Amino acid sequence: MEAYFDRLWPIYRSMAGPGFRQSLSIIEEIMPTKRLRFETGSKVLDWLVPCEWKINEAYFIDPLGNKHADIKDNNLHLVSYSAPFRGRISLRELHAHLHTIPSQPNAIPYVTSYYRQYWGFCISHDEYTKLPDGDYEVVIDSEHYPGNIEVGEAVLEGETDQEILFSSYLCHPSLANNELSGPLVVAFLYNYLKEAKQRRYTYRFVIGPETIGAICFLSVRGDHLKRKLIAGYEMTCLGDSGKFTYKLSRRGNTLADRAAVLVLRDSGTDQIVHFDPSNGSDERQYCSPGYDLPVGSLMRTMYTCYPEYHTSLDNKTLINFDSLAGSVALSADIIQALESNKIWRNTVQYGEPQLGRRGLYPSLGSANACEGKTKAMMWLINLADGETDLLGIAEKSGMSLKDLIPLCYELEAAGLLEEVGHHDRQ
Amino acid sequence: MEAYFDRLWPIYRSMAGPGFRQSLSIIEEIMPTKRLRFETGSKVLDWLVPCEWKINEAYFIDPLGNKHADIKDNNLHLVSYSAPFRGRISLRELHAHLHTIPSQPNAIPYVTSYYRQYWGFCISHDEYTKLPDGDYEVVIDSEHYPGNIEVGEAVLEGETDQEILFSSYLCHPSLANNELSGPLVVAFLYNYLKEAKQRRYTYRFVIGPETIGAICFLSVRGDHLKRKLIAGYEMTCLGDSGKFTYKLSRRGNTLADRAAVLVLRDSGTDQIVHFDPSNGSDERQYCSPGYDLPVGSLMRTMYTCYPEYHTSLDNKTLINFDSLAGSVALSADIIQALESNKIWRNTVQYGEPQLGRRGLYPSLGSANACEGKTKAMMWLINLADGETDLLGIAEKSGMSLKDLIPLCYELEAAGLLEEVGHHDRQ
Amino acid sequence: MEAYFDRLWPIYRSMAGPGFRQSLSIIEEIMPTKRLRFETGSKVLDWLVPCEWKINEAYFIDPLGNKHADIKDNNLHLVSYSAPFRGRISLRELHAHLHTIPSQPNAIPYVTSYYRQYWGFCISHDEYTKLPDGDYEVVIDSEHYPGNIEVGEAVLEGETDQEILFSSYLCHPSLANNELSGPLVVAFLYNYLKEAKQRRYTYRFVIGPETIGAICFLSVRGDHLKRKLIAGYEMTCLGDSGKFTYKLSRRGNTLADRAAVLVLRDSGTDQIVHFDPSNGSDERQYCSPGYDLPVGSLMRTMYTCYPEYHTSLDNKTLINFDSLAGSVALSADIIQALESNKIWRNTVQYGEPQLGRRGLYPSLGSANACEGKTKAMMWLINLADGETDLLGIAEKSGMSLKDLIPLCYELEAAGLLEEVGHHDRQ
Repeated sequence: MEAYFDRLWPIYRSMAGPGFRQSLSIIEEIMPTKRLRFETGSKVLDWLVPCEWKINEAYFIDPLGNKHADIKDNNLHLVSYSAPFRGRISLRELHAHLHTIPSQPNAIPYVTSYYRQYWGFCISHDEYTKLPDGDYEVVIDSEHYPGNIEVGEAVLEGETDQEILFSSYLCHPSLANNELSGPLVVAFLYNYLKEAKQRRYTYRFVIGPETIGAICFLSVRGDHLKRKLIAGYEMTCLGDSGKFTYKLSRRGNTLADRAAVLVLRDSGTDQIVHFDPSNGSDERQYCSPGYDLPVGSLMRTMYTCYPEYHTSLDNKTLINFDSLAGSVALSADIIQALESNKIWRNTVQYGEPQLGRRGLYPSLGSANACEGKTKAMMWLINLADGETDLLGIAEKSGMSLKDLIPLCYELEAAGLLEEVGHHDRQ
Repeated sequence: MEAYFDRLWPIYRSMAGPGFRQSLSIIEEIMPTKRLRFETGSKVLDWLVPCEWKINEAYFIDPLGNKHADIKDNNLHLVSYSAPFRGRISLRELHAHLHTIPSQPNAIPYVTSYYRQYWGFCISHDEYTKLPDGDYEVVIDSEHYPGNIEVGEAVLEGETDQEILFSSYLCHPSLANNELSGPLVVAFLYNYLKEAKQRRYTYRFVIGPETIGAICFLSVRGDHLKRKLIAGYEMTCLGDSGKFTYKLSRRGNTLADRAAVLVLRDSGTDQIVHFDPSNGSDERQYCSPGYDLPVGSLMRTMYTCYPEYHTSLDNKTLINFDSLAGSVALSADIIQALESNKIWRNTVQYGEPQLGRRGLYPSLGSANACEGKTKAMMWLINLADGETDLLGIAEKSGMSLKDLIPLCYELEAAGLLEEVGHHDRQ
Repeated sequence: MEAYFDRLWPIYRSMAGPGFRQSLSIIEEIMPTKRLRFETGSKVLDWLVPCEWKINEAYFIDPLGNKHADIKDNNLHLVSYSAPFRGRISLRELHAHLHTIPSQPNAIPYVTSYYRQYWGFCISHDEYTKLPDGDYEVVIDSEHYPGNIEVGEAVLEGETDQEILFSSYLCHPSLANNELSGPLVVAFLYNYLKEAKQRRYTYRFVIGPETIGAICFLSVRGDHLKRKLIAGYEMTCLGDSGKFTYKLSRRGNTLADRAAVLVLRDSGTDQIVHFDPSNGSDERQYCSPGYDLPVGSLMRTMYTCYPEYHTSLDNKTLINFDSLAGSVALSADIIQALESNKIWRNTVQYGEPQLGRRGLYPSLGSANACEGKTKAMMWLINLADGETDLLGIAEKSGMSLKDLIPLCYELEAAGLLEEVGHHDRQ
């Protein structure tokens, strides 16, 4: 995973153009995608597809001849999507185009200007305060030109056409946790899942530029998802060493939410935050009221909750590859929760089954409340009423899915549980 | 407002008689009312209309010739509705007719005896302990006689015949917060509202004697209110400097409750108390099970929660006129919440609207979660699904109504919101 | 009660055999039962009825000739239902058959082996550590033989055939709180209730061996209870001096639960625990999903929550007879709550009734919120809407059932309440 990270890191990405395309090609080495294309100027839902953008070079030179804000040093130095500019201006004029974070004087901010024609540079506040008076030479060799927004989509088919979605984005230049962690986890999750012997559900994986990518994707897949999606997750900020956070879908109690909340609970985390359309990523599009899809967002430390967010400090030192692997593993647990969410019925509905004669009960009765497997078994038997799904049993009993899932099959083999269905309404 | 207060203060009011009539006349200078009259002895709902009562003079003279408990000094000195009495009695006999508050030795209590023929005086405990032995001359020149209970009613018509009610009472003699604050706020609210350019709802204002007045009023307006009332408020204890308190209606989740709870939340208060028929004012009648109207009660510090309540210490020094004006303003906010409670539909239901090209989004993307107006806008767009009313949007988003209401009209002008209805079920 | 306790204590009980039979005979002196019999080997629900078991003598003798673990000293010394054994074995071999509690070195544990052929002894850990090396003579003269599981059932008929169940068990040898307290409270409750002048409901009392007894009982009464039972209680651990605990039924909001929760609340206790099929007694059978009966469990300190549980320390010193009597009294309060759970309708639905002219209101109005009886009366009048049952009125108002119940009849006599029905759905 680290090798992929290192190759993706230096590429100058934006929402459309060669940087995005090159980045997606690297991801496709792990997860081959079909590329959906949307032409500049076309209408997608309420949006107009913007131009592609290409940056050749960008920097400015101070009166003493020193080069500053060269994007060769750090992609964040240029306000993304900046208009081209070449000229001599005073420090005062330059100031109107400089962005810093006074409270984090050593960090370069990440700034974009997608909707207003503008150019600007981002530098550390330390550097900013030392710029000498005089005239500056500014070079921004950028181009806006008609082209395409591209969205990569991969599908792993399952036994049914009901779907589970994993979505992330790939448009930020050189940001680690709030960018590369997402598509890397999605791609490696694909890689893990494609080996599965059996998949009940069809899995769809989507990686595009943030916001406009999701809008484009929904313009062609929205109706389909409205009919078929039973759970989806926007994947972001998954590389730091923080505990997991889950942001609920708009409805807040969908299957997606229930599975994620339980898996997080079992992992020892209760960082569940409510849906909030004023903050976040593409779950805002999936959860727009017309779609209102069952899509939440899986994170470790949430964007805006760590100080390095959207600055040059969100780099390789902030993340670690064990955390990324752990994020893939937790996502796989969520998938297992959904795949295992059967509705079971205890074959002995009247009174408890006599577990003792089946060798399923501790042979010696003593003072302690039953624990571990026996405890999970007693809950399962009592709640397997042919109506409650397995997630519901985990919710009501407090038993972990890791304990319950294998036990279901063991009790099925013992003739004590029978499957009556699968809960796969949203 | 102070001038009206000063004129109303000295009048000897009771539930029926010249004191009440004279007080209502003063209120009518601000808010002209139609007077509903209910004859002594007639049956109103389960009640019998009582006699009017008039007091000419009342006091007692101690053995040393000193006059005590003269109602010319303080109206509270006489137990309200006292039977006439004139005679010489011992201190011991007098004791059975004296009321004090030992724990507040300088306060005169407020006591009534509406249902038992009785006479009595209220004095400070300090005065009580100093009364010398011997014979006392008692003078109570009062009259009970057939007449009318009167209730003042004012109506401001709106575009629809659905109604909002403000109710208060005017029968306590010389009590400031738990009496005059209520009718004064109601009258000034009328005064404010009659100037409104537009009123969706019809507003009804009612001022009568407590309990019997509400019973009489309901006997002629109850059925009408059951059909037309969408929200109502019993107004009392609105002049002290405490934060606002709202007592929920019997049902607890009516439109009246939702609007008041949100406006109090936005004002920084969370003093919401449950409906309680064992304590309170005329909301008890409005919320009797047969009517079960959507009527709560708006207060600052609630009756029985401040030590001056129902004593001579509840006087002009306890209240202030800024607080009264603030109570009118908060009531107007509740009205605005109800008038603005439209059901909006975002015209772009699928995906977010592209706010950037409409100049509605900050042009530079940066690290911060959006705040203020942008934040409120994102919530509004997401929750304006054509089903949730504006109060519901405020409830779910936590955004303030003061932020949301003007934004609705701004987004409507930008073609992003359209009105699909008005929530005006109870 | 103490006399019965002292006679029951020394009997060697197990789930089937002469000890159980003799114990039930003593209980029958208070509560005559019909004995339901279930033959060894027959199928009851999912279970096979086990053999009876009889123990004649059991002990072991150490190399120095000292006798240990003689059941004549303490019934708990033998693992219940032990297979017969007679022979000479080494200390090492004996160790595999000894049970102790190292953390409670002076306590003898209670251990059973119902489903695996096994023999063993239970001794204090202190004794265990002092056993000398060498050969031991073991004597267990026990017999397993075909016979019957017996369950004692008593019924007190009421005006309706809807039923209330009290259930307990009688199979543990020489345990006080977690055994004898249950059947003693049930029997004395029967004794109290049989004297009642009037019973709306039919009461069924059941005492058998734990688990298998309930299974047997349900095999013949389950369908009947599913139709007729409105509330039931498993009675256990009712003799210690702790506050009451109530374990909710599987559904958690049945009439049984509501009555018990209110009566506990009024008694100053809020120890309500959720249903848990992995821990507990026969409520697990009553609440198996096919039956899902409205049966909770009434206790003082819950099993597994006190250190003496299932050890020789759960003896007469742990319990007291005032507590047992208090448990009977609280059970009677629950019965009263259910018997009194009428649906009342205030005859004055519109506005409050004029209590003053009926002499039901304090004649002098003053500063205080009404208290005590007046307060309860105001709540009752407001909530008696012909739909809310009395338990619902107690729940919403916070008023105690002890205050509300007599008041209902007083207000009925005053013509202010009329009965419109009885809430007796589960």
